[in-house]
Amino acid sequence: MIPEQLTQGQYDTVYNLLSLVIAAQLFTALFLVAAQPRVLPRYRQALLVSAVVCGIAAYHYFRIFDSFRDAFVTDAVGGRGTYTQAPGASFNEGYRYVDWLLTVPLLLVELVVVLALARKLQASLLWRLIPASALMIALGYPGEVASSDAVRHVFGLLSTIPFLYILYVLFVELTKSLDRQPPAVRDTISKLRILLFASWGVYPIAYLVPLLGFDGADAWVGKQAGYSIADILAKCLYGLLIYRIARLKSFADDPAFAEAEEGTAEGHASGRSGVQVPA
Amino acid sequence: MIPEQLTQGQYDTVYNLLSLVIAAQLFTALFLVAAQPRVLPRYRQALLVSAVVCGIAAYHYFRIFDSFRDAFVTDAVGGRGTYTQAPGASFNEGYRYVDWLLTVPLLLVELVVVLALARKLQASLLWRLIPASALMIALGYPGEVASSDAVRHVFGLLSTIPFLYILYVLFVELTKSLDRQPPAVRDTISKLRILLFASWGVYPIAYLVPLLGFDGADAWVGKQAGYSIADILAKCLYGLLIYRIARLKSFADDPAFAEAEEGTAEGHASGRSGVQVPA
Repeated sequence: MIPEQLTQGQYDTVYNLLSLVIAAQLFTALFLVAAQPRVLPRYRQALLVSAVVCGIAAYHYFRIFDSFRDAFVTDAVGGRGTYTQAPGASFNEGYRYVDWLLTVPLLLVELVVVLALARKLQASLLWRLIPASALMIALGYPGEVASSDAVRHVFGLLSTIPFLYILYVLFVELTKSLDRQPPAVRDTISKLRILLFASWGVYPIAYLVPLLGFDGADAWVGKQAGYSIADILAKCLYGLLIYRIARLKSFADDPAFAEAEEGTAEGHASGRSGVQVPA
Repeated sequence: MIPEQLTQGQYDTVYNLLSLVIAAQLFTALFLVAAQPRVLPRYRQALLVSAVVCGIAAYHYFRIFDSFRDAFVTDAVGGRGTYTQAPGASFNEGYRYVDWLLTVPLLLVELVVVLALARKLQASLLWRLIPASALMIALGYPGEVASSDAVRHVFGLLSTIPFLYILYVLFVELTKSLDRQPPAVRDTISKLRILLFASWGVYPIAYLVPLLGFDGADAWVGKQAGYSIADILAKCLYGLLIYRIARLKSFADDPAFAEAEEGTAEGHASGRSGVQVPA
């Protein structure tokens, strides 16, 4: 799996990407915790879950980062050199699955919770989405760590079944509830679903890379880059969109809250232009 | 890139500067989080983003610091010695770009958010500034890690195009909205823009150092010093100015808040000078 040798540029690219993910996840998590008072209490659960997802991802990327650093030795002196596999260490490729097993079901929880649907509908969605997402990850893992292409194929296919089911639930069932959302929010929810679809789509592509005949160091670096960028989109950007939905819904629910939070923005600005006040 | 050898003084200078940046970023971040209640809720987003920027920078400087320490070995005994490149380690010069890729767009977000412009104008500014700043950093990176001067030239030039565009937006477009700001704040906003311009100006100069024929250990130490000081100005000082703008705008928006916060300071002072009260 792991290439025999990396150039300095390839090594630095993976190093920088993994660290970029740590920074993005860690500070999105902290931001989402600190931003709690900026939405109404009813939406804070969604923010908290988003923060937990990013925090878990940050933790796992610290481990992936260390595993990567330990897996190579270099003959570099000064700034440049060649990296070869370190004896007595291995890069734990299956490690990402541990992260996903925890975070992917929680990503779906975020989405369902922020919509603040009727309790019954919410429960029904979660009972279907959470097991399906856990199953999707669990079925992908044996394929990822397998050394045979056939095994990779079989588990890749099996894992696709719950994936398609999740997409079905999100696009068909959830759409029905969209018209119950405030108009200002509908657009952001649609964007969120597209983001989820687009970023989750990267994982099967990265998974398939070894099957597509790409091999060698560049393919491996590309796979790490794909997973890293997808993790930033699917967790950080996704979490920030959840925050945005929570903000917009808070404003729609409570105009006084909107005024306090946005005061000068629209309120004041429009107030000022048309001021001349009650005379 | 990295010099063959550093004197004790050169090594200590870089060591001290990198650690200074960690201290400055980390505690500015903590200060800005703790200072949240000292501005009106509508300005807390700007403070929070400033804190995140400084926090991300602190994280990255921890990594840069470790990378620097690992990159050299010394024959020092009891205080003084000569530092030479450590075998099996490299100083990751491109690493700063990972930091900038996250923080530079956020610095522009801080500025736009604290101005509390009308929502539409705000969105339009952000949609132009954020992609331009990300492009500016992304285009600089290949030049920084290139070993050829020609490549450095080309990407330096390409990167300048979005930089000039950002300056245009900040100075031409933003100026139009300045007269909608409270008079007490206009002056600070002008200072902020000058700080942004001056501190961002250091980066291209440091980038150009290798092209200007400076070389060797002193030039390298100078480049590290330039980047470090620019990072303190562009993030910590900038974040504190954002805080000052948020405070002044909070006072201008809500006299009761100003009285509660400043009681003895301005409230009292102006009360004293211009008293004669309602009579």
